[in-house]
Parts: sequence; C-alpha cells; structure tokens
Amino acid sequence: MDLVYTGKTKDVYALEDGNYLLKFKDDVTGEDGVFDPGANEVGLTIEGAGKAGLRLTKLFFERLKEEGIPTHYIDADIEKATMTVMPAEVFGEGIEVICRHRAVGSFYRRYGMYVEEGQPLDSFVEITLKDDERKDPPITKDALDMLGILTADEYETVKELTQKIADVVKDELSKKGLELYDIKFEFGRVGDSGEIVLIDEISGGNMRAFKDGEYIEPLRLEKLMLEE
Amino acid sequence: MDLVYTGKTKDVYALEDGNYLLKFKDDVTGEDGVFDPGANEVGLTIEGAGKAGLRLTKLFFERLKEEGIPTHYIDADIEKATMTVMPAEVFGEGIEVICRHRAVGSFYRRYGMYVEEGQPLDSFVEITLKDDERKDPPITKDALDMLGILTADEYETVKELTQKIADVVKDELSKKGLELYDIKFEFGRVGDSGEIVLIDEISGGNMRAFKDGEYIEPLRLEKLMLEE
Repeated sequence: MDLVYTGKTKDVYALEDGNYLLKFKDDVTGEDGVFDPGANEVGLTIEGAGKAGLRLTKLFFERLKEEGIPTHYIDADIEKATMTVMPAEVFGEGIEVICRHRAVGSFYRRYGMYVEEGQPLDSFVEITLKDDERKDPPITKDALDMLGILTADEYETVKELTQKIADVVKDELSKKGLELYDIKFEFGRVGDSGEIVLIDEISGGNMRAFKDGEYIEPLRLEKLMLEE
Repeated sequence: MDLVYTGKTKDVYALEDGNYLLKFKDDVTGEDGVFDPGANEVGLTIEGAGKAGLRLTKLFFERLKEEGIPTHYIDADIEKATMTVMPAEVFGEGIEVICRHRAVGSFYRRYGMYVEEGQPLDSFVEITLKDDERKDPPITKDALDMLGILTADEYETVKELTQKIADVVKDELSKKGLELYDIKFEFGRVGDSGEIVLIDEISGGNMRAFKDGEYIEPLRLEKLMLEE
C-alpha cells in the first residue's frame, strides 16, 4: 500500500486492486488555532476529528447510493478512519462546486449590493477553482469550457448532481432541526466512460448549517448528525 | 437642460426632448496621479482627454451604425465635448461586459494556474458588477438571472453583441498596427421593447491595446487612432 498523496486533512494510498484508500486525519484547516473549513492551511489538530468526518461522510454517501446518485465510495472502516474509493480523475487541478440555499459567505461578500445577508437562494450553484495561491477564484461555465477544465455538457451534469446531492443533505439535516445554508462538493470522472461522480467527502467542514438562527460549527454539526 | 448625474469622467444632462447629453470631462481615473482606466477613482485631470475620448467614441459608434449594431448614440459635438444619446435603462446598478482576446489583467490574475500571460483567448466574454466597494466582482450567467439583473436570454444577446462589437474595434485597431487584448463595454435597454444596445463610450480607457509587443496607454492609443 503506497502513500501517493498527503493532503491537508487526508492521506491517499494506492491499493493493489486499483482502488484508493483515504485516511482521514485529525488535522483540520484553520487560522491562528481556530477551526475554519474555508481556510487553506492546517490550523490545528483535534482528536477524533478524522473519524467523526468519516462517519458523517459514510452516512451521506450511503444515502446517496440509495438515491442512485453516483459517488466514488466503496466502503469505510471507521475504527481505522479509512475509506475505500474508486480511482477518479479530477477536473483540471481540481474544482469546488458550491450549492447555496442562503446568501452568506463569499456570495454575500461579492453580491451584497443585490442581496440581504441570509436571503434565501434557490439551490444556486457556482464553481471555484482549487488554487490556494489565487484564493480559489470563482469561474464561469464558459471559462471552464474554454480552459479545458469542464465541457459545457459536463457543467450541466455537475450542476444537476450538485442540486440533487444538496437536497439529500438538506433533508438529512432538517431531520435534526438543522438548516443547510450552503455546501461545497468535489466531482471527478471515473471509468472508461468518464462518468461524473461525487468524490472526496461530505463532512461538517463542507457545509454551513444553522439551528434556530445560530451557526453550528462543523464538529458540533457532526456530533448532532451522528447521535442516535 | 438639467444636470441629472455627475460621473467620474462624464456629466449627464436631461434634454427637453427626452434624450440625454453626455459631457465628456478631462478627468481620468487613476491612482496616485497615474492614469489607470481600471481604477475606480478620479486620479488626475488631463487637458483634452474628454474631447479625445469623445472623438474615438464617435468614430466607433458611427462604425457600429454602419454594421447595423444598435447603440444609444445619436450625435456628437466635438467642440463642446458632448454626445447626445437615447435614454437607456442599465442592468441592475450597472454591469461591465468584457471581451478578451488575450489573457491579461484580472483574467490572468484569477486563472494563471491554467493560462500563460498573454495567451490568445477566443473572444472570451465575462461580466462584472459595477460596484466600487466590492471591487467590481465577476458574476455568472446564472447569478445574473437569479438576482434579476439580466435574464438568461438577455445574457446571450449581450454576449453576442459584445463579440461583434469587439471584432469591429479589433479590425479598426489593426488598421493602425495595434492589437486589441481586451475591451469592456456597457449595455442598456432602450424603448418600450427593451431592446439591448451598447451605451456609454468606447475610448482608450475601455481597452488594452499593444503595438509590436508594447502596451499603448489610452491617450496615446486615442492619438494613434485619430491621426489621419
């Protein structure tokens, strides 16, 4: 089992059968010792953070399987904090796809001339490039196509999948009295056909959720979602 | 004749017949006393800048008329530095539409992971909001539609007009040995039908042009374009 990539919050190993093993670490992104899922650097280590993230990811990926929504997920071993996944090719050097149900974060910072903070948005989808140096810039459908990152058809597939997956997550959260404000996903192409599937993880750090008007930070969100 | 708006580089007067008169000023945008067409503040005053900008605008708007491309232009009086235009309704609080033939400026700053500086782009169109406070953020077709700024159909019309107009400007520049790298336009709706037309101006400050690999600053560009 070869370590092929060391990420900020996960290590990736190549398995002999061609699949990959993701090892969820207790490192979380943040700044100045404060957990911030939007940060681009590892900020601190929290014991149990890796396993909690994996447990929530497993919950969502298995729900998506029931809904017939394709992901790279094969199975997970919570004790070892590992997840087995199919090999996938990312788009370009990686993109993040965001689905917004309320205007907060970078959307509000950009478009505050036209929206109130927290205003409902109708499953609005936008894409940013994974590029720490350039602060993950937003990018249009036309630019993704022109730069060879995502074709126009692939864009539509990604948008549709994103809205479906965000709906599944929103429903699961609402069962615990939580409201999903926004969520980010990663996608990739698998197999010879290049089928587009959800990759990476769906843990607390991927989303902003509120309960009774109060922001629920990622680790508390995971705890609320995972308790019986 | 009532002054209805004082802009950074133009004043706007309402005429009795319902049209508007744009008075081109010698104020140009910039920072620290240096002319910068991309800046959001008036930086300095250059004698003759208003008239030169108007002369070039007149040249392009009359060329566009020959091509059957709709604009708000009626006529111009160079001596008085004024242009008469039809009333137009801007989109939202105003948008800027950029057409790029080479990857420079903010496009290169955002997407430098995928392009070389100066790399040719195929009449790539993108839109930014006019919002000094938020530094004119880029915005997607979907977001423009959702925020009620531009419908999906209007977006396609604006994109098509932008590419046609940029081609006309590119051809005119090439007659003087100049290469157009990028250019920004403003559009609005006129009349009861809400027909989409080019508004504002097309002067040196709207574009980046190069000659033999050297950047030609706006006032020199205007001089080169206007000399017999």
